[in-house]
Amino acid sequence: MFGRTLEYNTDPTSLDHYRRYSNRYLQWTTLLFMWFLLILALFEDPAVVPLPYWATTIMELICLGVIFFRLSQLYRFVPQRTMITDPKNIVIALTIIVTLIDMVVYIGIVESGVKGAIRVSRVLRPLFFINMNESKQVRRAFRNIRNTVPEILNVLVLFMFSIAVFTLLAFKLFQYRGLYYRDDVSQKYFVDYWDSFFDLYVLVTTANSPDVMMPAYDSSEWFALFFIAYIIINTYIFMNLFLAVIYNNYRAHLKTEIRAAVFWKRKKLEEAFELLADHFPDQNATVTEKTWFQVMKKLTNPPTYRKVNLFWEVLQAYGKEDKNEENIDETDKVNGIGKDQFLQVANLLNVNLVEDSSTVNIFYIYARDVYMSRPSRFIRTCVSHRFFVYFFDLMIIANAVCIGMDWESTEWFFLSIFILEILLKMFTLGPKEYFSFSRLWNWFDFLIIMSAFIATIVEASLDELNTFPREVLDFIMVLRCLRLVRIVGNVKRFQTILMTVLNIAPSLVTYGIVLLMIYYAFAIVAMECFGGLISGTGYENTNCGNPKLEGSEFIRVGYCNNNFNDILHSLVTLVELTVVNQWHIITLGYVLVTSKAARIFFIFFHLIVVILIMNIIVAFVLEAFILEYSLSRSHIEIRVEKVLEQLGLMAQTNMTSVDHDRTQLVIDQENDDNREYSGSHDARYRDGPRHTFRINKGHKNVEVLLQRMFEGELEVEAVSGSSSQPQTVTLDDVTGTSVTV
Amino acid sequence: MFGRTLEYNTDPTSLDHYRRYSNRYLQWTTLLFMWFLLILALFEDPAVVPLPYWATTIMELICLGVIFFRLSQLYRFVPQRTMITDPKNIVIALTIIVTLIDMVVYIGIVESGVKGAIRVSRVLRPLFFINMNESKQVRRAFRNIRNTVPEILNVLVLFMFSIAVFTLLAFKLFQYRGLYYRDDVSQKYFVDYWDSFFDLYVLVTTANSPDVMMPAYDSSEWFALFFIAYIIINTYIFMNLFLAVIYNNYRAHLKTEIRAAVFWKRKKLEEAFELLADHFPDQNATVTEKTWFQVMKKLTNPPTYRKVNLFWEVLQAYGKEDKNEENIDETDKVNGIGKDQFLQVANLLNVNLVEDSSTVNIFYIYARDVYMSRPSRFIRTCVSHRFFVYFFDLMIIANAVCIGMDWESTEWFFLSIFILEILLKMFTLGPKEYFSFSRLWNWFDFLIIMSAFIATIVEASLDELNTFPREVLDFIMVLRCLRLVRIVGNVKRFQTILMTVLNIAPSLVTYGIVLLMIYYAFAIVAMECFGGLISGTGYENTNCGNPKLEGSEFIRVGYCNNNFNDILHSLVTLVELTVVNQWHIITLGYVLVTSKAARIFFIFFHLIVVILIMNIIVAFVLEAFILEYSLSRSHIEIRVEKVLEQLGLMAQTNMTSVDHDRTQLVIDQENDDNREYSGSHDARYRDGPRHTFRINKGHKNVEVLLQRMFEGELEVEAVSGSSSQPQTVTLDDVTGTSVTV
Repeated sequence: MFGRTLEYNTDPTSLDHYRRYSNRYLQWTTLLFMWFLLILALFEDPAVVPLPYWATTIMELICLGVIFFRLSQLYRFVPQRTMITDPKNIVIALTIIVTLIDMVVYIGIVESGVKGAIRVSRVLRPLFFINMNESKQVRRAFRNIRNTVPEILNVLVLFMFSIAVFTLLAFKLFQYRGLYYRDDVSQKYFVDYWDSFFDLYVLVTTANSPDVMMPAYDSSEWFALFFIAYIIINTYIFMNLFLAVIYNNYRAHLKTEIRAAVFWKRKKLEEAFELLADHFPDQNATVTEKTWFQVMKKLTNPPTYRKVNLFWEVLQAYGKEDKNEENIDETDKVNGIGKDQFLQVANLLNVNLVEDSSTVNIFYIYARDVYMSRPSRFIRTCVSHRFFVYFFDLMIIANAVCIGMDWESTEWFFLSIFILEILLKMFTLGPKEYFSFSRLWNWFDFLIIMSAFIATIVEASLDELNTFPREVLDFIMVLRCLRLVRIVGNVKRFQTILMTVLNIAPSLVTYGIVLLMIYYAFAIVAMECFGGLISGTGYENTNCGNPKLEGSEFIRVGYCNNNFNDILHSLVTLVELTVVNQWHIITLGYVLVTSKAARIFFIFFHLIVVILIMNIIVAFVLEAFILEYSLSRSHIEIRVEKVLEQLGLMAQTNMTSVDHDRTQLVIDQENDDNREYSGSHDARYRDGPRHTFRINKGHKNVEVLLQRMFEGELEVEAVSGSSSQPQTVTLDDVTGTSVTV
Repeated sequence: MFGRTLEYNTDPTSLDHYRRYSNRYLQWTTLLFMWFLLILALFEDPAVVPLPYWATTIMELICLGVIFFRLSQLYRFVPQRTMITDPKNIVIALTIIVTLIDMVVYIGIVESGVKGAIRVSRVLRPLFFINMNESKQVRRAFRNIRNTVPEILNVLVLFMFSIAVFTLLAFKLFQYRGLYYRDDVSQKYFVDYWDSFFDLYVLVTTANSPDVMMPAYDSSEWFALFFIAYIIINTYIFMNLFLAVIYNNYRAHLKTEIRAAVFWKRKKLEEAFELLADHFPDQNATVTEKTWFQVMKKLTNPPTYRKVNLFWEVLQAYGKEDKNEENIDETDKVNGIGKDQFLQVANLLNVNLVEDSSTVNIFYIYARDVYMSRPSRFIRTCVSHRFFVYFFDLMIIANAVCIGMDWESTEWFFLSIFILEILLKMFTLGPKEYFSFSRLWNWFDFLIIMSAFIATIVEASLDELNTFPREVLDFIMVLRCLRLVRIVGNVKRFQTILMTVLNIAPSLVTYGIVLLMIYYAFAIVAMECFGGLISGTGYENTNCGNPKLEGSEFIRVGYCNNNFNDILHSLVTLVELTVVNQWHIITLGYVLVTSKAARIFFIFFHLIVVILIMNIIVAFVLEAFILEYSLSRSHIEIRVEKVLEQLGLMAQTNMTSVDHDRTQLVIDQENDDNREYSGSHDARYRDGPRHTFRINKGHKNVEVLLQRMFEGELEVEAVSGSSSQPQTVTLDDVTGTSVTV
């Protein structure tokens, strides 16, 4: 789990500590506490749910304690020099110390009765996520972002220079024309250089387009040319330049990192092989079957016996194939894994292999006569027919119309229709197959309909009692509308798009966390600077609790709720700032209640989040989408498939979609019929469930995807394998075990 | 110029007609008339500069006449079957016919005294650009866009479905809560399905974020989740999906096209070689030197004698090298171009080779004693020093401050300082070198300063006469501010960025034209639908000339000038719609004066221009930027450089930047000094200007750039060359000539 970033001693005691440290439940617990530390902001003043400060302080101390415990665990097996020079550990230790000091100061201030004290050090909390070994992928994403910064600074300076020159020009052109802004007639048009600069910076984000242009355009049509030139240069050219520079650098840095990772992995695998292999005098060294099974059992996350067996077969086949090419005697040493094959182990462990225990319909087992009866067969034929799908698509559309038209009475009808559909499908497929991992749409379907069913009953009973909570109704409504999404799963061409999106979704989670960390830090700062200055909701509010705002545009558009009074409101406001539109109005509000310096916070947020982070996300999404569209099986996946086919263990279909339902249904049906008529009982019905394997297209995590991205470009390394680091843990374990054995 | 799209007969008369047709002045004239046809919209009703309709009609007839003439020219050498089945010609002919009919109808209506008649067929004018042979690159860009459409339709349907489901949900959640929009209290929140749909479509473009959310957010904080989910799914995921799909498809289609072009070019070159080469019984066929020079002279755009000579040398060297590799006797046939070499001709002609006649300073020739005198040498040493550059950078900054502070009196000082700088540089470098093609910053500098100088004099004299036109002052102000841009040219790291932008700029022009064509069509439609309904300027206007608008948001923000009353206003409004922000307010205005159906026009415009075209431009820019950043010399360029080096004809530096100035200055200086002290006179001073060559980094056009983009990926073809089509004209001519000879 820690990859090459963790250096450790190899004596038995240290290895023991290492194994204890890398216990996965312990890691998860640590992560949980790290998250909990962040969530504490909900209860700390200014709080969403206020708790006394001693309660939150104790909880925070517990979280810090857990982090300190992990650090101390690390201390027991990492060389001391590495421990105290590693910037990560230093940052963690310093953050803990600063937090403790801040805590003491805060308690002192609160106890002395001063109001409005705030926990400043909370802004540092995301640092744990960036530096702890438990959140390696977040750290990597951060490092990549940090690496991109120096390169875009040049563009940033040029960009700012461009705005400055345009501002000077606008300032000189419009200053003496006696023009006024439309929305605030008291405000003269372009009379202050820095105000003008801010106006034009906002124009880059398009948030005040075309309003900022209108007074000049009204005064002379030709001034439109100035603004069009400005937008082309600054909004279109510079913004694309940012994207291009970030895209380029980000890729370059990633490639370097992944190349290093691949080399490191290869080195470690070679070391492991040397330790594990039996050396014979006149033959190449090989790992025997016995050692192989032993080693696999000792992994932190051991694969099932079936998988280990399969891997063995694949590596054997791999070796044979290579030898065939080289025309060496085949019978030589079939029962061992050579070095070349062994180097493929990490890749092999990364293949997203799913064990399908092809299920026997329990109705067939426990109620065979009924299941095989004529009416049952008729039902199953119907369910397998494509008109079954069409009919329910039609029902969904009818349902949508009824929802739109508020025909509440039809709801029970549709609910029972959809429940019937689920029951029929379940009967035909058997519950186990119905809920199999590859039929995610069924899960979705089942969850939505059942929740709606339960919620509707609850609502009906509450209705009787004359208590009528809106929330239940809203919840039911969401469920009803989500039901409509099902129709997408029934159209083949939409499935492809949807699957592409779903496949890259897990990889995007890392970036989601990065974004959240940055939001968190900004939210804490914003609460410290702007908390409590603006309050109330927008309706009929003339000053949002602050007389300085009276008559401003901020009040007119009713933005009182876009405040930084607690962590949730802050996050919503920051999301609005990320979407960019109207950010200058939000800024205006905080400028009015503080000073023009508040603009720095908002411009800084825009530069960091919108220009830097969002562009990196766009670059990543672009690359990942294109890869997913044109996804081909990797080298090692093809080999695994070949072996699966040879062994007849391949699942009938690789689709992870609803479409699967239909084909599978038909196949089941046919098999069933054949069996019945021929009177023979297929092995799968006699010998219990047969296990097959299926390679999932989805990626386990962002790194596997990234490595796939650069697979083609890392030519030399591609041969020696291009798998990901997370699995190299297991190889650390491999080396570890073999030393102690 | 026409590439492989033009099929023609090869009999002598046809070839003669072909040569006449492809006369480049004729082509430029045609293009001029095509542009003029578009510009006519300025004078046609509703006009910016009204002309009587008979005048514009006559001008239009002339333009149509020119286009018809070109079509008839084509008819003389293109096989008749090709002529009448080619969709391009059919479209052109039909467009002419429709235009003529429309013209007659229009005259009829106007003569019968009916007001408000409009020339409907003007919307077809961009079709000439898409279909005429003269604007091949625009046509290609259009074809690529068209090819991308089918693929994004799936995403579009899914996207619309997503909005529809979200709308249904929002509709049900907010319908009965008694909420109102903030800006228009009379308008209830989400009570009409299609209005809600439009609101949420606008939210995808972020134009009404967060306003559309505020009423719900004020009513319950948790509704923010709905809008955040909506924005993540529709704005972030779907919009990026559009970009990704377009990026992917656009690249795929381009690659297919360029592969085809490369193959076609190879075929034609082989044909040409067969015709031109002298065949010997026991040797491979070769093209002799004499034929080579004859052929080169007959190109439509013949290179200079020096270039032809250089090409000959390069191809010779090319041949030798290949033979060396194959270990064949070298002395064999040095004096001929073999087939493999000949296939490189098109690539060779595409190398952006600039002839540098390294100039002798005229001061040196005509006033040698002065030029070589001690004060002169001192001045030249100063100018070459880097503090000279620093000093003037400082002056520019001081100038910026003075402009900002309105210190008008300093202007004459700065103007003379900058004129002095120009004169000093010109003296040191000599005027010819100063204005050499590689020193574009000097041109820029000279133009800006001289214009400012002249304008300031004009202003001063007008000032005396007490007439004081604002326009002159504005013009001077623009020039003064542009002067500041010079500073960018003096910083090395900014130069790189700027050069990258400038290098891809010519390629972007094609897309600019495509965008303009689409704007034109939309502008004509908008003038027909909305012309004259909204008028006046925003200041103190309460209804923009239309009582239906009274009290609306459109009036409040003062958008009266965002109208479609003439072609220029229409274009500005369309640019505003492209920038997206506030497009829903503009839409609102036109909905109020017509009906809700007006939304279709604006949504359609958004889909076509913002989602389709802008994404294609972003994709292209991204690809081009990344290529330019990591630009390496192509295969053939390296060979040309090698030959240039061997012949000692390489210019001293390849930089096309200002930095060039400094190094060049220093070199000149040193050469000069050395020469003087050693007493020897360098050949360049004795024998007059020595011609050197330089390979420019910039690309001639979008196609060369595109081919470079895919060079790596078109593996097989890359060997046989990867040059562009435009030059293949010359090869058509080659075949042509050789037949008639």
